[in-house]
Amino acid sequence: MRVGVLTGGGDCPGLNAVMRAVVRKGVGRYGYDFTGFRDGWRGLLEGETVRLDVAAVRGMLPRGGTLLGSSRTNPFSQDDGVRRIRENLAKYEVDALIAIGGEDTLGVAARLTDEYGVRCVGVPKTIDNDLSATDYTFGFNTAVTVATEAIDRLHTTAESHMRVLVVEVMGRHAGWIALHSGLAGGANCILIPEQRFDVDEVCSWVTSRFRASYAPIVVVAEGAMPKGGEMVLKDGSTDSFGHVRLSGVGEWLAKEIESRTGKEARTTVLGHVQRGGTPTAYDRWLATRFGLHAIDAVRDEDWGSMVALRGTDIVRVPLSQATEKLKTVAPELYEEAGVFFG
Amino acid sequence: MRVGVLTGGGDCPGLNAVMRAVVRKGVGRYGYDFTGFRDGWRGLLEGETVRLDVAAVRGMLPRGGTLLGSSRTNPFSQDDGVRRIRENLAKYEVDALIAIGGEDTLGVAARLTDEYGVRCVGVPKTIDNDLSATDYTFGFNTAVTVATEAIDRLHTTAESHMRVLVVEVMGRHAGWIALHSGLAGGANCILIPEQRFDVDEVCSWVTSRFRASYAPIVVVAEGAMPKGGEMVLKDGSTDSFGHVRLSGVGEWLAKEIESRTGKEARTTVLGHVQRGGTPTAYDRWLATRFGLHAIDAVRDEDWGSMVALRGTDIVRVPLSQATEKLKTVAPELYEEAGVFFG
Amino acid sequence: MRVGVLTGGGDCPGLNAVMRAVVRKGVGRYGYDFTGFRDGWRGLLEGETVRLDVAAVRGMLPRGGTLLGSSRTNPFSQDDGVRRIRENLAKYEVDALIAIGGEDTLGVAARLTDEYGVRCVGVPKTIDNDLSATDYTFGFNTAVTVATEAIDRLHTTAESHMRVLVVEVMGRHAGWIALHSGLAGGANCILIPEQRFDVDEVCSWVTSRFRASYAPIVVVAEGAMPKGGEMVLKDGSTDSFGHVRLSGVGEWLAKEIESRTGKEARTTVLGHVQRGGTPTAYDRWLATRFGLHAIDAVRDEDWGSMVALRGTDIVRVPLSQATEKLKTVAPELYEEAGVFFG
Amino acid sequence: MRVGVLTGGGDCPGLNAVMRAVVRKGVGRYGYDFTGFRDGWRGLLEGETVRLDVAAVRGMLPRGGTLLGSSRTNPFSQDDGVRRIRENLAKYEVDALIAIGGEDTLGVAARLTDEYGVRCVGVPKTIDNDLSATDYTFGFNTAVTVATEAIDRLHTTAESHMRVLVVEVMGRHAGWIALHSGLAGGANCILIPEQRFDVDEVCSWVTSRFRASYAPIVVVAEGAMPKGGEMVLKDGSTDSFGHVRLSGVGEWLAKEIESRTGKEARTTVLGHVQRGGTPTAYDRWLATRFGLHAIDAVRDEDWGSMVALRGTDIVRVPLSQATEKLKTVAPELYEEAGVFFG
Repeated sequence: MRVGVLTGGGDCPGLNAVMRAVVRKGVGRYGYDFTGFRDGWRGLLEGETVRLDVAAVRGMLPRGGTLLGSSRTNPFSQDDGVRRIRENLAKYEVDALIAIGGEDTLGVAARLTDEYGVRCVGVPKTIDNDLSATDYTFGFNTAVTVATEAIDRLHTTAESHMRVLVVEVMGRHAGWIALHSGLAGGANCILIPEQRFDVDEVCSWVTSRFRASYAPIVVVAEGAMPKGGEMVLKDGSTDSFGHVRLSGVGEWLAKEIESRTGKEARTTVLGHVQRGGTPTAYDRWLATRFGLHAIDAVRDEDWGSMVALRGTDIVRVPLSQATEKLKTVAPELYEEAGVFFG
Repeated sequence: MRVGVLTGGGDCPGLNAVMRAVVRKGVGRYGYDFTGFRDGWRGLLEGETVRLDVAAVRGMLPRGGTLLGSSRTNPFSQDDGVRRIRENLAKYEVDALIAIGGEDTLGVAARLTDEYGVRCVGVPKTIDNDLSATDYTFGFNTAVTVATEAIDRLHTTAESHMRVLVVEVMGRHAGWIALHSGLAGGANCILIPEQRFDVDEVCSWVTSRFRASYAPIVVVAEGAMPKGGEMVLKDGSTDSFGHVRLSGVGEWLAKEIESRTGKEARTTVLGHVQRGGTPTAYDRWLATRFGLHAIDAVRDEDWGSMVALRGTDIVRVPLSQATEKLKTVAPELYEEAGVFFG
Repeated sequence: MRVGVLTGGGDCPGLNAVMRAVVRKGVGRYGYDFTGFRDGWRGLLEGETVRLDVAAVRGMLPRGGTLLGSSRTNPFSQDDGVRRIRENLAKYEVDALIAIGGEDTLGVAARLTDEYGVRCVGVPKTIDNDLSATDYTFGFNTAVTVATEAIDRLHTTAESHMRVLVVEVMGRHAGWIALHSGLAGGANCILIPEQRFDVDEVCSWVTSRFRASYAPIVVVAEGAMPKGGEMVLKDGSTDSFGHVRLSGVGEWLAKEIESRTGKEARTTVLGHVQRGGTPTAYDRWLATRFGLHAIDAVRDEDWGSMVALRGTDIVRVPLSQATEKLKTVAPELYEEAGVFFG
Repeated sequence: MRVGVLTGGGDCPGLNAVMRAVVRKGVGRYGYDFTGFRDGWRGLLEGETVRLDVAAVRGMLPRGGTLLGSSRTNPFSQDDGVRRIRENLAKYEVDALIAIGGEDTLGVAARLTDEYGVRCVGVPKTIDNDLSATDYTFGFNTAVTVATEAIDRLHTTAESHMRVLVVEVMGRHAGWIALHSGLAGGANCILIPEQRFDVDEVCSWVTSRFRASYAPIVVVAEGAMPKGGEMVLKDGSTDSFGHVRLSGVGEWLAKEIESRTGKEARTTVLGHVQRGGTPTAYDRWLATRFGLHAIDAVRDEDWGSMVALRGTDIVRVPLSQATEKLKTVAPELYEEAGVFFG
């Protein structure tokens, strides 16, 4: 049995840990061979491969990024994509495929399995933790940890100078990173994409915090939006993935707070720092277990399945479930955090 | 409503975060007052209190240890323990009690509720993660993170000098810290209390690792024991909690490996470094949510309940469940990790 | 003897460590008493004091910020500033003053000593490390460490996605943080205020890095400026200290790189994360030694002196030297780092 | 010009950073070629080489350990050592040699240059910081940082349980790591090899600390010895370098404190964790500059020289100076730290 492996979408700490586990167990227990495809579906479409054996994954457990590279290439947006994939699977004698990625990557894997009989197993990956099929995804804990450490450091500055500090964290459609890091860092207010925020309410929290002789820290997800009327945030340009680039809710909010409260406000934009570097112990554990169970799904010929975390167990769910529903922050969970606002 | 709070047993990162959440929500949402008792049940027995209001918990989210102090005093081992507890609850006008602790502390709370009608709510705490009623306990992730960082650092030394490095981590009766940190750190073998280890097998893993031109790192839980015949580890003394002190399975194992394989072996004993200091983001989140839900249980007059994590939800379980069963590493989970041994 | 202490200017990890050392040695060895003035010279002008004894400094060694608060109030910009200072020194029976601060704060101390006979001793503080009188200042190592950790994390993202990552670090007039963190983080190019940069050269480094199949990381000090023609960076507003706010050389440069090379570029602006939080071991050591020697200078009645680091020794220099000359990155030191550009 | 490079002695964070700088500048600026010798002088004696070019050093800046491996082989303890070295230098067409190591390694380089005309340049390396020719050596700051982080974590446990915590750190002959980490971590007493300690005095510090309602942390260098009478520490065995293995001053002292004060005491032995893993930003900077200046010394044909740090400058000193004198903690520096004892 030769198993192909590819990683798609944005990078995420733990991708290499997944592959190391897949290869170590696949080679050591089941005697499989592996072929890596470079840059997600692109490598499979264009027949670009990467050696993937025990030596290749040595030392990769603590390494961020992905040794295979990544892209957002979608084979279904190309006329002969499926045909080329089938040809290359045959050419490289690849019997089954493990696709590690987010909604898009796994959506392709689901269609390839369901409609074209390609034998795929999926491993979910999203730094934003917004897949409903799994309790957590690897990378998320690392992002939260990085953001929390930054918030920890900002507290002393906020207090020494009695300034408002706004921290913009990742999260376009779901506020998980903002919610977890904001709670863990002791933020005085957390703004998430799921609920439009009221700038006046934010300012009243800021003001009440100052009255208690402490300085406020506002954590805002990059996708959070104010109530009523649009921010002028879009700069019109699109990034390489075709997304309109939103920039600067943090910067925008800092200026609003300054002008409405008369208090100085500064912004920190953590950006890609949140998604790079070595995974936390938690993410290495989760990624490793995902890998061990993904190769078991291959052995069980459980095509079209995806590994997922439920409580402390790794289970399998249909790949189609992975892309069904965005997991967003429930109102009652956000309300729970509201205890600490102001 | 006045709520008493106490922390018992060994310390654990996150205790202060629990109390901060309890107080912030209790004061802000429900208008409760709080009284802290110093050093666990001792403070309640002896009427020693600590001020516990919003000011007292300010800045405590990232602080390790417990602002109330802790002890292992057990009121049931004293003739008039229950009487004195009732007297002091009356004296300090405390209507309900939140007990934060492990098996012993929660066992007392369960009996006080069930047999004497004291209105208790419990919050589970064990750095070893060995309570079956909850998926995880706070403090555990911090311990695993500290141990993993140490293992990360040892890799380069192990490889530069081709030495065996033995890392002894916490875990007297359960191997969770060893298992998680060993997997996350890329250990070449993990030894846990749940399964007696075979020194010859450990030596064969060590030797095969050297043959692959890499140096082995052995993670051993302090409670792990070799097969057949006892180690001479017990030094006969007992600690202040009456436990016979086991010391040095790490040191003992390093010497055995040296003498059997002819390879140099060194030991690192992390000790209390694993249970002190600031909690990780994960533990702050878990501890905070435990606190928020514990005060809700008080409001709901759900006496005799304990908060617990199930998946991503905080639920309530009977306090009696907390102490029923030690949660140990299941054989199949240990077997899963065995892929990486050798 | 009663000694007054104040901290002025921007905050800096290690301020509390200085004060702890001053008080511990002053009380323990010399039997002095201490009075803290709140928010730098403002507290002395307005007679606002803070208790400063052994209990007040307990636990402050690892804490960022300053327990006294800080401001940029300058007594010489007020008509009766000197008179009020003298009155308050008399009123609070303060015999000598330890002023901890940067150019501005120490400049005031120098004039007060030289022109008005106020008995001052200075401790230098600048996160930017730009004081020529001392090899290093505390806080700088912490800032470099925080920036380096961020750069470390960005490497994997840069490589996985083959993007340019621009990191904007502190340094308005001197490029020390950029130089040290850029070298320690393995940046592919470092831009400092001391030398105007050529955007085309930066782009050629970026391009050559991509040709070697690696992705570039560009570290830019906030005060760095391009050659020829001004950036449109100034937003016209001024901050509370009267500085015109420059914003966004990082963001500006990322856009230039994108448009000139066709490669995606993203920016991380670390901001105040660099100057907050717990000091590194190095900064705690340096701050502690500065404090121990500052109180010795008081005992020696060495008024008008400032402590400074020379090699591994703490020495005393005239306060006036502190403000004489900005210590900038020498061309040959920058040239040394140039080996790694591109 | 072909330059040979080797690393000898115990490992130390920063060795790879030195070599990366040597190679990047040597290739990029001077057009040199490089040959690595495996495991210090052993590789040169036995003709075992390692490829050392720009690709080989890529990504090595943040990596602990040494890509060349290390050993303590001494060519002068072999009959034909010098002859074999000369033969191998000729065989591999190596014109000059950069030796990175401690006293032993540099002592060999000094003799080879002075007595046999081998063209050597040295880079000093000692985690213990005990070379008198340089202000600091790389690796030392990393060790101090690791030890300080451990002490930080121990504070909360010490206080929550009112136990004595003893931390044993590296330092056989010099107490630099103990002194710096003890000061930075806020230890209540620091014991170094340079001055025999009085157990009764240590116990009186411990007791007085408890009286102030705080728990003591004792930092002890592995080479520290009590006054009067020997500890029974030596276990009689010798390690691979012929040193008699001292073990357990920390464990020994904890037991003494327990029996004399009646207070529980626990020990943490950090061991090799202190010398492994990624170098701090400071050590990467120092190691990189050492490397850049070492290759300049080769270009200048300054044979028999060694690079050293003086203040903020990298200078050259004769290799012979490196081994002349052990740099130990001066009594007045230790006395300075004594302010914080008890």
